[in-house]
Amino acid sequence: MTGAGFHVDPWVVSVSGLEPEQLAHEESVFGLSNGHLGWRGNLDEGDPRGVAGSYLNGVFEEHPMPYAEDGYGYPGVGQSVINVQNGQIIRMLVDDEPFDLRVGELLSHDRRLDMRDGTLHRTFEWLGPTGRRVRVESTRVVSLSRRAIAAVRYSVEVLDQSAEVTLISELLANEPLPIVHDDPRVQDLLTEPLVTVEADVVGSRSTLMHRTRRSGIIVAATMDHEVDGPGCRVVSDADNDKAQTTIRARLDPGQRLTIMKYVGHDFERGMTPATVRARAEVAVAIAKEDGWHRLLADQREVLDEYWRCADVVVEGEPRLQQAVRFALFQIFQAAARAEVRSVPGKGLTGSGYEGHTFWDFEGFVLPVLTSTAPDAARQALLWRHSTLHHARDRAAQLHLAGAAFAWRTIDGRESSGYWPASTAAFHINADIAVAVLHYVRATGDAEFEREFGLEILVETARLWLSLGHRDADGAFHIDGVTGPDEYSAVANDNVFTNLMAQLNLRGAADAARRHPEKLKELGVGSDEAREWEAAAADMHIPFDEERGIHPQSAGYTHLERWDFDATGPDQYLLHDNFPYFDLYRKQVVKQADLVLAMHVAHEAFTSQEKARNFEYYEALTVRDSSLSASPQAVIAAEVGHLGLAYDYLAEVATIDLDDLHGNTHEGLHIAALAGVWTAIVAGFGGMRDTADGLRFAPRLPQPLTRLKFGVRIHGHTLSLNVTALETTYQYSGDEPLTILHFDEVITVGGDDVTVRTPSLPDPGPRPQQPRHRAPRPAFGTDADGDQGRVC
Amino acid sequence: MTGAGFHVDPWVVSVSGLEPEQLAHEESVFGLSNGHLGWRGNLDEGDPRGVAGSYLNGVFEEHPMPYAEDGYGYPGVGQSVINVQNGQIIRMLVDDEPFDLRVGELLSHDRRLDMRDGTLHRTFEWLGPTGRRVRVESTRVVSLSRRAIAAVRYSVEVLDQSAEVTLISELLANEPLPIVHDDPRVQDLLTEPLVTVEADVVGSRSTLMHRTRRSGIIVAATMDHEVDGPGCRVVSDADNDKAQTTIRARLDPGQRLTIMKYVGHDFERGMTPATVRARAEVAVAIAKEDGWHRLLADQREVLDEYWRCADVVVEGEPRLQQAVRFALFQIFQAAARAEVRSVPGKGLTGSGYEGHTFWDFEGFVLPVLTSTAPDAARQALLWRHSTLHHARDRAAQLHLAGAAFAWRTIDGRESSGYWPASTAAFHINADIAVAVLHYVRATGDAEFEREFGLEILVETARLWLSLGHRDADGAFHIDGVTGPDEYSAVANDNVFTNLMAQLNLRGAADAARRHPEKLKELGVGSDEAREWEAAAADMHIPFDEERGIHPQSAGYTHLERWDFDATGPDQYLLHDNFPYFDLYRKQVVKQADLVLAMHVAHEAFTSQEKARNFEYYEALTVRDSSLSASPQAVIAAEVGHLGLAYDYLAEVATIDLDDLHGNTHEGLHIAALAGVWTAIVAGFGGMRDTADGLRFAPRLPQPLTRLKFGVRIHGHTLSLNVTALETTYQYSGDEPLTILHFDEVITVGGDDVTVRTPSLPDPGPRPQQPRHRAPRPAFGTDADGDQGRVC
Repeated sequence: MTGAGFHVDPWVVSVSGLEPEQLAHEESVFGLSNGHLGWRGNLDEGDPRGVAGSYLNGVFEEHPMPYAEDGYGYPGVGQSVINVQNGQIIRMLVDDEPFDLRVGELLSHDRRLDMRDGTLHRTFEWLGPTGRRVRVESTRVVSLSRRAIAAVRYSVEVLDQSAEVTLISELLANEPLPIVHDDPRVQDLLTEPLVTVEADVVGSRSTLMHRTRRSGIIVAATMDHEVDGPGCRVVSDADNDKAQTTIRARLDPGQRLTIMKYVGHDFERGMTPATVRARAEVAVAIAKEDGWHRLLADQREVLDEYWRCADVVVEGEPRLQQAVRFALFQIFQAAARAEVRSVPGKGLTGSGYEGHTFWDFEGFVLPVLTSTAPDAARQALLWRHSTLHHARDRAAQLHLAGAAFAWRTIDGRESSGYWPASTAAFHINADIAVAVLHYVRATGDAEFEREFGLEILVETARLWLSLGHRDADGAFHIDGVTGPDEYSAVANDNVFTNLMAQLNLRGAADAARRHPEKLKELGVGSDEAREWEAAAADMHIPFDEERGIHPQSAGYTHLERWDFDATGPDQYLLHDNFPYFDLYRKQVVKQADLVLAMHVAHEAFTSQEKARNFEYYEALTVRDSSLSASPQAVIAAEVGHLGLAYDYLAEVATIDLDDLHGNTHEGLHIAALAGVWTAIVAGFGGMRDTADGLRFAPRLPQPLTRLKFGVRIHGHTLSLNVTALETTYQYSGDEPLTILHFDEVITVGGDDVTVRTPSLPDPGPRPQQPRHRAPRPAFGTDADGDQGRVC
Repeated sequence: MTGAGFHVDPWVVSVSGLEPEQLAHEESVFGLSNGHLGWRGNLDEGDPRGVAGSYLNGVFEEHPMPYAEDGYGYPGVGQSVINVQNGQIIRMLVDDEPFDLRVGELLSHDRRLDMRDGTLHRTFEWLGPTGRRVRVESTRVVSLSRRAIAAVRYSVEVLDQSAEVTLISELLANEPLPIVHDDPRVQDLLTEPLVTVEADVVGSRSTLMHRTRRSGIIVAATMDHEVDGPGCRVVSDADNDKAQTTIRARLDPGQRLTIMKYVGHDFERGMTPATVRARAEVAVAIAKEDGWHRLLADQREVLDEYWRCADVVVEGEPRLQQAVRFALFQIFQAAARAEVRSVPGKGLTGSGYEGHTFWDFEGFVLPVLTSTAPDAARQALLWRHSTLHHARDRAAQLHLAGAAFAWRTIDGRESSGYWPASTAAFHINADIAVAVLHYVRATGDAEFEREFGLEILVETARLWLSLGHRDADGAFHIDGVTGPDEYSAVANDNVFTNLMAQLNLRGAADAARRHPEKLKELGVGSDEAREWEAAAADMHIPFDEERGIHPQSAGYTHLERWDFDATGPDQYLLHDNFPYFDLYRKQVVKQADLVLAMHVAHEAFTSQEKARNFEYYEALTVRDSSLSASPQAVIAAEVGHLGLAYDYLAEVATIDLDDLHGNTHEGLHIAALAGVWTAIVAGFGGMRDTADGLRFAPRLPQPLTRLKFGVRIHGHTLSLNVTALETTYQYSGDEPLTILHFDEVITVGGDDVTVRTPSLPDPGPRPQQPRHRAPRPAFGTDADGDQGRVC
């Protein structure tokens, strides 16, 4: 059993019983999505529930951005994800008794998320207050093969005595959102965001058409039904915010009433409602015609294909095995069919962060998709490319060259309200560019590079050149920016940013050389690529000679250290209890920054620097962000602290299953979940991406006995089977692949290659974390009261 | 004639004619106030008008502070000055023709602000559309001797033919405010802030009682009238938002109808309406009984006493003479009877900055009051003292010791919405403390120091000790703060801040030694004062050895310089056209920061450093703030650039009369106006306050031939009469006074002392300012298109 009561199983997350206060958490865990359409795991009957959630990726409402004191370049319009028409609901009456889990007696209640089938199953048995007993099975799917479609099979069996069973299947608009904005007046503007355009019924099919009030998006929802049961009567009607189909049947004991409900969605901005409507209705018609079993079979097929490469086998800790697959399932769900839309920080599992995407998608999630589901990675990069016009406008507004991508957004326009932690965090542009470089290198997708990637690289390189400046000695500096660590801001020469900009500038110059035919079209002058390379070569990387470590940014190591001893466990998260003012001016790290740099720009550091830097920043890092444990795991493993790395892996692996941050009800931490894969593959697998190919350095931590994972390279899969003593490499490609195993060059082709793991040099004593902020022992049974929550 | 059409006169500011688009500007210039009650110079008839303005210092409405992204320690409640019941209005009908300046023919219209009488006079002659001609004289006074009282004498003479004249005297609540908040939804909350409590009439006296909607302040307004004219009929009534008294008389040609209107105000939070009402009514009853002539005589007497010491005589430029007296009149008006209330940045002449007070009151205005009207200075410091409980709460919220005074506020609670330019600008605490030190030194008011000043000094010293930290070498640093320059923020070791904190810490230790009997009460431990002195002694003052100058803050001189050549004249104000992000990370100075430090902490710099620093920062300073020209004038004069100093003096002297910033309609720039005195006295007079007494270094710029000014010291006046060749010192005190004239020690007692001015060493070439930002030649007749507006 997990900390939050889920049963431990390699491919299934399940829970028995029903605790109302756990519902909101479970709704996120049991959410189904295909990247386009997302349903939280609300109970079929609509009540009780934690947070209603039915999302379409890209459907949002606009609101004014409120400022106590306005400033130049502050975005004026914000964006918030909203609930679209909710097609989940199937209510039940048994005779005249409305089914209510809280009334009568719930004899059993089980839910199980099957990560191979891609379905959410639910069974329960209910004894109504007047003595009628029914058994219900429901299965829900959000189709990975049919982007617009979600479906539910709901089946009621009457036990003991005959009864009239009524099922009411609904589409319901303007369901309340939880609080998604700090300002209550903005929140008010987000209630009832859907305005009715049309509502109608043909037979058992209903369609609701709405338009979002301010953002003007047309949203269509269609439902249709197949019914199976003795003597069913079916009636449908629809008006304004609700469509419903009522199915009634008199059942004798052992008889069943079963309905298959197909729900289809589409939306568009600036398209006629008739077109959007037709798309939703056609999708439903086809799904219904193909039928329920085909839907499930297709779902399994898509997932089988995904798992073939993406699966990570973990032996030695069943909870980790389950958690890893849960993480990989969620990443896939979040992005699989996003198709040129952004992937929100919470995926489509909740409305946290207003449904915005952030840098951590490109920084954390995209590398995993590139290695496991490269088509989804490509689509996500195409989305960023599609926002280049907004990014160019933003750069121009800031008097900068090139393109400045939005720090937080749904549709590509900047929607950040606090510039020191958004506009100033220019590293997002390099995060995107490096994701492009990584994708192209891993897939060999030259067409993508030429048609899309190059333009991103060029425009971001131009941004960096205009953003930085040279000092009297010719060194290139980037001042006044914010790195990943949100407890620092507006600092000079942030090492992470400068190294990422360096990769960006070099990558742009390399790509420009590979595609000379495109340069004229992109207006790249003859000297431009040389200037990028020169700036990269002259990039200033501050170093504290006295301490022998890299400061996070210039002068960082001279700042006052946070007084960790005076900080109580209840004062974390620090940003909930201390002003930015105080956090920014002291040495205290919310999340890996320099440590993250040592992963993504690993070639810029010697092994000795990595070890010293890691130890220094461990003592400062409080992990008040979910984005920290994974990079810490990666570098802990690299510098030999395998036990510490394992503790961090366990933390990030259980972040949502165990609700470690207390906010999983707002949605899953998709980037953190991607970090589970990264902690394993880049941490214990030691994978590093270099211009000369991949390097691995696999080592197992206690208590693991085996790790097996795959990485997609140029359309094929490189598999590693790692045990304590050796690693077996296997490659499915036609051409042999040259890689590094530690410092040994090996070639993997038709035959497996098995190589021994060199002995681990003594890494020295385990680095210390700030008081109260050491990670819990992995999957430990001892509750550790010291562990603050993080988010 | 001034640039804005005012007649030049040594004691009067007057204008002829009426230009509707100038009204809003003139209303600020012609505003009358006593520091408690302020009336903008709206026309008596209420229309046409630019911006309605009737303020009581301390009457404000609260509103939620809007944030796009909330943070710990962000103030939740904002404050905005509102219009109280408007008692200015006297409408007129001639026969059945409502008087309207825009209808018929305005044969003449003159307004004159008399700075010795403290009155606003107005005369006009109007030919109505039906041929009736009247001559009107009005005189308005806001009493400096009776805090609650304003009064108007309004007199109508019928010319040519008989007519029935009707005057309608009003009290009018909920007059619209101009836009005072960026957020339109906050602005909406500020409409109609007054809720009626009571409205009634007894004879010709009416009273309106209101309560502010959210802040719950009871505001009483009473008016009563004396009437003089043949066969007058008087009727009064009142309800809700309006009270009116109608006076009618049939006049033959040459006959007059004259009314004297007395308006009284009082307000209180948390007091019964009956008490507040009684105070307003009694004030009016006494004023009416004493009568109009007594009111004017008292007004003149208060001003004569003020001018006796405060007057500055300028020979050689009549516009400067007028402007200096205008500045001094406005400073006095703003603060004379504020009496333990804050003095807003705009005084009571407009609703700009929401009526908030800022650091510039203590930094710029208080030193002038201390030298010219020390009782008002004392009251203002008592107000800060009265907010210590809020300041302690704020410090505790920020996890700091002592007290952190509000950056912007009306009642002492922090109301800032952008922390990098408010919370981080901790120098306000030292500005207040240094104002205390200066006041005590200048007045010898030991009772104030003991009972009030010491506590401010102790609490701010504690703040600094908790705010700073020591490095490994023991040097004391103050990191992450914002100095005066608002184009930099959140920097380490801002020189201004560190030097002011040093003065604060030393001053607190000295004061603690002088009042050992108070230390127990204030909880000052035995080592505390020693710790303050040690921190002051170890205070790190960064210096750029390579350039031989002080960086504004650590590392400042290594930042990229702003590209002034690429910045067009229409791109100023920079903060209206560039993001904070870009301003903060580059060398560009909005307003004197290091240069201001060289004035207030003058002993920390050598003459050579002052000259080099001044030249360096001149080239970076764009004067996008009204607080810059005066400190630049002071240091320009000190380093010998008298012509440049004079140009800066002229700029600040005409800031409001000529509406240089285009925003005088929002209210006068009280701190900038105080800078006129400072530019003369500390600039050309060279006055510096030292622990050993005053030092002067008087020199006249071209074209001035004489300067005469006085400074209050220990209750007496030290006068300087400066000509090109010599200075005559005169002191009214009983004990002789020792001062420095340049480096010469002189003693001034019963006899005047005349000393020669040493010859001016060659200061070298005139320093250059950024392109388009050089000051205009003083009072030049050449319009300089390059001169951007500043604010």
